[in-house]
Amino acid sequence: MLSHSVEEGPLVNRFRACWDELAPVGRDAGSGGYLRYAFTPPELRLRDWFRDQAAARGMALTEDGNGNLFAWWGDPGTGDAGSDGAILTGSHFDSVPHGGAYDGPLGIVSAFLAIDELRAAGMAPARPVGVAAFVEEEGGRFGVPCLGSRLFAGAIDPDRAAALTDAAGTTFAAALGRRPAGARPDLLGNLGGYVELHVEQGRALAEVGAPVGVASAIWPHGRWRLEFTGEANHAGTTRMADRRDPMLTYAFTVLAANKEARLRGAHATVGRVRVEPNATNAIPSRVTGWLDARAAEPETLTELVAALRTKAAERARRDGTELVVVEESATPPVAFDTDLGARLARLLAAPALPTAAGHDAGVLAGHVPTAMLFVRNPTGVSHSPAEAAGDADCAAGVRALAEVLAELACR
Amino acid sequence: MLSHSVEEGPLVNRFRACWDELAPVGRDAGSGGYLRYAFTPPELRLRDWFRDQAAARGMALTEDGNGNLFAWWGDPGTGDAGSDGAILTGSHFDSVPHGGAYDGPLGIVSAFLAIDELRAAGMAPARPVGVAAFVEEEGGRFGVPCLGSRLFAGAIDPDRAAALTDAAGTTFAAALGRRPAGARPDLLGNLGGYVELHVEQGRALAEVGAPVGVASAIWPHGRWRLEFTGEANHAGTTRMADRRDPMLTYAFTVLAANKEARLRGAHATVGRVRVEPNATNAIPSRVTGWLDARAAEPETLTELVAALRTKAAERARRDGTELVVVEESATPPVAFDTDLGARLARLLAAPALPTAAGHDAGVLAGHVPTAMLFVRNPTGVSHSPAEAAGDADCAAGVRALAEVLAELACR
Repeated sequence: MLSHSVEEGPLVNRFRACWDELAPVGRDAGSGGYLRYAFTPPELRLRDWFRDQAAARGMALTEDGNGNLFAWWGDPGTGDAGSDGAILTGSHFDSVPHGGAYDGPLGIVSAFLAIDELRAAGMAPARPVGVAAFVEEEGGRFGVPCLGSRLFAGAIDPDRAAALTDAAGTTFAAALGRRPAGARPDLLGNLGGYVELHVEQGRALAEVGAPVGVASAIWPHGRWRLEFTGEANHAGTTRMADRRDPMLTYAFTVLAANKEARLRGAHATVGRVRVEPNATNAIPSRVTGWLDARAAEPETLTELVAALRTKAAERARRDGTELVVVEESATPPVAFDTDLGARLARLLAAPALPTAAGHDAGVLAGHVPTAMLFVRNPTGVSHSPAEAAGDADCAAGVRALAEVLAELACR
Repeated sequence: MLSHSVEEGPLVNRFRACWDELAPVGRDAGSGGYLRYAFTPPELRLRDWFRDQAAARGMALTEDGNGNLFAWWGDPGTGDAGSDGAILTGSHFDSVPHGGAYDGPLGIVSAFLAIDELRAAGMAPARPVGVAAFVEEEGGRFGVPCLGSRLFAGAIDPDRAAALTDAAGTTFAAALGRRPAGARPDLLGNLGGYVELHVEQGRALAEVGAPVGVASAIWPHGRWRLEFTGEANHAGTTRMADRRDPMLTYAFTVLAANKEARLRGAHATVGRVRVEPNATNAIPSRVTGWLDARAAEPETLTELVAALRTKAAERARRDGTELVVVEESATPPVAFDTDLGARLARLLAAPALPTAAGHDAGVLAGHVPTAMLFVRNPTGVSHSPAEAAGDADCAAGVRALAEVLAELACR
């Protein structure tokens, strides 16, 4: 419960008090990072906290049958087709493994505090304002990023989503407790806009000295599974010339991906690998790596992956190994609503910047006018405990989001 | 029980009947390889089988308090300091992950069948003949190869061995059911020799067309843990120039290890890796690789590792990462007993060849005259389901071992 923070004290103190409530939930004592996977105990505690926040403010709570939660300031039923529709804001609770504190939760906390600001200023909603907590944004448990918003927007088949499994074999349907409802055009059709506030995942705001920015676009990006197969054999007794070692082809490909990305001003990462049998004294039979690649233009991304395939295939021939490349996901570029973005940048006198990270806002942008606000991250580090945001900048983010909601939804 | 195979039929059929009893134990239906880790249910079944084999032959069973089993033809108590001591033969039951059928069990099966041959020929032991099943030879569960023979020979501190853990955190002491007894000079002092029969882990015998060979030496070898640390960060948003990605330093080092080994006629492998956090959209904070390196001369091995350290450290500076190299094990070269080896090679008219694999025989060679026999492996593949040995060659191995035991221990 949050009774102390709804009304009293300077905003920066209220932000800190609220933030301190969440800080211990799911924090790993070893790394200092967070393990807040969807529907695991820490994320369930955060969902309970969300319900408490809504109740403390007298906000109606709705769910969409996909695991996404919504808390409403104003009656969501009034956002019918004849009106301008509701304005949604919010983000997600789940984290990558050992991720930072701000990625996701900052957008939800800021949404509640922004509504407090508006109420304290005597404003009322001219159209409903919803606070959203989307589930499985990072894809950290079931492997598909933005799973909750994709289901909500009809961008993924609910049966496919239901069958996704975590590392222990639990399905998304089992974790959710039901077959996901899938697309909710009834809810989506009542939305007039979505504004997501997020910690910046780079140093652009730090470099220009601004606490808050407005997103202009999301880079296209994709994930490719690289399956290298060779022949398991004894590490000690097998002559070097007789080996078919897929670890060599993998290692070459990791370095080539880095080089091809640098050549093109793109980003490429191999951050996940699986080895069979993964024994010190055995040449592997199989090495699987996952490539994450992103670029400002989709053509650049296509060229990068094509060049990498060619080089890796050449190396595989030399190593006597085989390579299969499977595209696991491909996300086209997202241009956020130009009018809305320009309006918010003017309103906030904030710089506009692109991002290379996927977000639920990228999914919703295909359906409703969508914008994102970023809060300065002095380290520029993301998906790591070193992710950071100052309390004063977080308070500035709350004020900016309140200004945006006042402009778009209040009277 | 093995009543049918003790007495009847041609040796090749008796070998096959005995082999078929073991074939299903611990075989993974997917890979066709074996998961026979020390003290897991498949290995416990093989230990029961060992006890049954001893009982069926009226052989006394002894244990050494370290997990090693011995079955005796002749009274082991007669091998006192005043006599020539007992002759030990045997091998191990445990496998690497998804290893082959022959590596280990062939030596134990061949030992029992060789004793059957000698008995059928009316021979009797002039000195006790022991069949040994050493535990955890591969180090596949607790990480230290030849753990059972090292304990038996006093080559590892029993408290250190007791505290070794498997992937689930179970200690060796818990798996064994007691603190290991450690060095058994009382037993070791009663041994007059050790002869281990093993499937060849290469193609030397296939190339010279011989079914059986005699080992001349074991190459020196070692394991080094390579710990690469960098900075976890978002795979999408972090500029390439801002990264400190330990996967790049790891990949470079894998390729450099291969190159440095080829330059020196040595063997180097990185077959095991662990990544943190191991997520597709996160630059890793840490990548740990394990280097297995072997060479004919210890100086070559030292040079190889030194050259690799230098190159990897240079690359780490470029990548903004850090590298720590920890020597996990170092095994000096083993020259088997020259007289015994030459005597057996003459006796069997078999070629002599070195091996780059570690064996319990390598541990015992420091204490008693030791020799190894190899059985031809037509694929040359080892530590893999593709490991092979023909039934006729296995029968030739049994006959060769019987000849050796007749020469060394019978009247």
